[in-house]
Amino acid sequence: MSHFSLVCTRCAQAHSPSMTTLGCGSCGAPLDVLYESTPDANQSRVVPPMPFHAESPPISLGEGNTPIVPLDATGRTLGLRDLKAKLEYLNPTGSFKDRGTATMMSVAAELGVDAVAEDSSGNAGASVAAYAARAGIEAHIFAPVSAPQAKMQQIGVYGAHTHAIEGPREAATEAAVAFCRENSLVYASHNLSPSFLEGTKTFAYEIASQMAGALPDHVVIPVGNGSLFIGAWKGFHGLVAAGVLDRAPKLHAIQAEAVMPVAAAFAGREWTPQPGAATIAGGIAVGDPPRKQQVLDVLRASGGVSIAVAEAAIASWHARLANTEGIYCEPTSAAAFAGLELLIEAGHVASHDSVLVAVTGFGLKDTPPTNNR
Amino acid sequence: MSHFSLVCTRCAQAHSPSMTTLGCGSCGAPLDVLYESTPDANQSRVVPPMPFHAESPPISLGEGNTPIVPLDATGRTLGLRDLKAKLEYLNPTGSFKDRGTATMMSVAAELGVDAVAEDSSGNAGASVAAYAARAGIEAHIFAPVSAPQAKMQQIGVYGAHTHAIEGPREAATEAAVAFCRENSLVYASHNLSPSFLEGTKTFAYEIASQMAGALPDHVVIPVGNGSLFIGAWKGFHGLVAAGVLDRAPKLHAIQAEAVMPVAAAFAGREWTPQPGAATIAGGIAVGDPPRKQQVLDVLRASGGVSIAVAEAAIASWHARLANTEGIYCEPTSAAAFAGLELLIEAGHVASHDSVLVAVTGFGLKDTPPTNNR
Repeated sequence: MSHFSLVCTRCAQAHSPSMTTLGCGSCGAPLDVLYESTPDANQSRVVPPMPFHAESPPISLGEGNTPIVPLDATGRTLGLRDLKAKLEYLNPTGSFKDRGTATMMSVAAELGVDAVAEDSSGNAGASVAAYAARAGIEAHIFAPVSAPQAKMQQIGVYGAHTHAIEGPREAATEAAVAFCRENSLVYASHNLSPSFLEGTKTFAYEIASQMAGALPDHVVIPVGNGSLFIGAWKGFHGLVAAGVLDRAPKLHAIQAEAVMPVAAAFAGREWTPQPGAATIAGGIAVGDPPRKQQVLDVLRASGGVSIAVAEAAIASWHARLANTEGIYCEPTSAAAFAGLELLIEAGHVASHDSVLVAVTGFGLKDTPPTNNR
Repeated sequence: MSHFSLVCTRCAQAHSPSMTTLGCGSCGAPLDVLYESTPDANQSRVVPPMPFHAESPPISLGEGNTPIVPLDATGRTLGLRDLKAKLEYLNPTGSFKDRGTATMMSVAAELGVDAVAEDSSGNAGASVAAYAARAGIEAHIFAPVSAPQAKMQQIGVYGAHTHAIEGPREAATEAAVAFCRENSLVYASHNLSPSFLEGTKTFAYEIASQMAGALPDHVVIPVGNGSLFIGAWKGFHGLVAAGVLDRAPKLHAIQAEAVMPVAAAFAGREWTPQPGAATIAGGIAVGDPPRKQQVLDVLRASGGVSIAVAEAAIASWHARLANTEGIYCEPTSAAAFAGLELLIEAGHVASHDSVLVAVTGFGLKDTPPTNNR
């Protein structure tokens, strides 16, 4: 008997917990975890509820507990009173994905899964490869041939089988799904897995704990598939529901102009991929995110906005963060700062507001061509 | 009036605090920080004394508080009851050096220093470049032309001036020293700076706090210049002196056979660099460490031993850690595990002992050629 079920994010139909149920049997929409009972405030102040039975993730590399650091110099130039960053790149494989992967692979280990496949532009693939190695689970990682070399090398060192797929990002997804079907493997999709989303909740729980009494007014997150964005909201919302917090921050979703399905939908505009349009922010280059509607729901519920930023602004912030704050991040993370600048210009963030930006991936994994030498 | 002075590690002569006093005026040996008074146990349980006046490092990127994770699979194959790793690569620039750099650059900022130079095979250079950027201090980093490309690129992104120096590692040191003399710059040497060493003490304080009541019997550390090794001892020794701990672990210093001045001296053997001898463990390829005598003193005081490991064992452990534990480290860190294997074989570590290994640098920074694809 499980302490949770899976529920459709669109039609609310309930499904039994399973690693292979990744979409609603009725309408096909993505699923969320729903717990049988709501833990009391005292319990949920410390650890959020999780879809496994152990006290802590059985498959763990010490993920989470990432530092929050002030960005005083950047705050001053942006005219902000209080700007901070949470350094999510200081997770065990170099990106925030480890929060979700620890939960997803802990569930897999509890269920006795012995092999998985996953598709990724790099970060999620490296994360799944590492935790699979630790769990003794065989991993097949499908990535576009355009994925950064450092990420693919990292995946290989973890001992995963790498599959480089020609064509757009979506081709890697299709190849992974087909491979799972042909070989009866579990498709451990970080985009679809409800347990992956549960893991990213800890981001919000940590902010509530680390910034006790001074919760930021705004949290700015780069959004591709939106797993950190949705998970952060689940966390903050859960803390408000449990009475631990009296409000949640506004969550803002930043995309690149070249790939902006969420920002376009938020603005009520049609959007289709433009041939040849590309972004150096590879971690958020997702043309058709399966949880797009959930991201839009979180934007509405939290009072946040979604905007898209230009390539030049991403590159500029990538360098600026390193040479003024000592933070060497992926271009994907730099996009969040480019977005913050626009949020201030548009009046969505005021000078007396407090802001926290998620720095999601390490620069060592993906240095843009402009910085190669 | 300062709360500390600098004291010679050989002849005990006292010197006034200064960023430019890096060796004893009488005998030339390296200096250590000596505090005016010993803090009580209650104070030093939380934060070690530091050579600056602020409550916490004024120049900080959230360094430290790295996770300690069990290595059960590896422990089983080695026949060890209790094996853990402290993931020092999850510091802000990807290596343990950030502990020392945060302290050294905080002292520099307090003293109003506006430019520094440093020589490094990569990790310390990246660390100094990042913290200098954050402090608004100009940095010149001198590195051998053989330093890994990923590290040099990282240094450049932080906005430091990089100087690639032909010849052996020592040539970079000489070039940095000459550059400082010619341009009246502060030589921010991680090997010589007493404040850098003070910063690495936090490694031991965290272990004491994270493993309260179950302190490891052995701590195994890869040693080049020995800044983490000496700092760890200062930390443990300080905690014992303050009555917080009743004993310190044995500290073992691992080197590569190709560059083993400490291991040779520990064994009472002469050692000179062999032409053509090289190691993939670039972080510990230091032929003549200026604090060698201090490392030997710590070995004696803690009851540890120093041994050297073969290249094949380093490469093998590098892959093994990634594909069985999900830990992607630098070859330098893998050397520590190769060393642990020899310590067990030689009877220095028993099966019922508890062991902690420092994983000092991220694999993303320096992947050995055997893993390149």
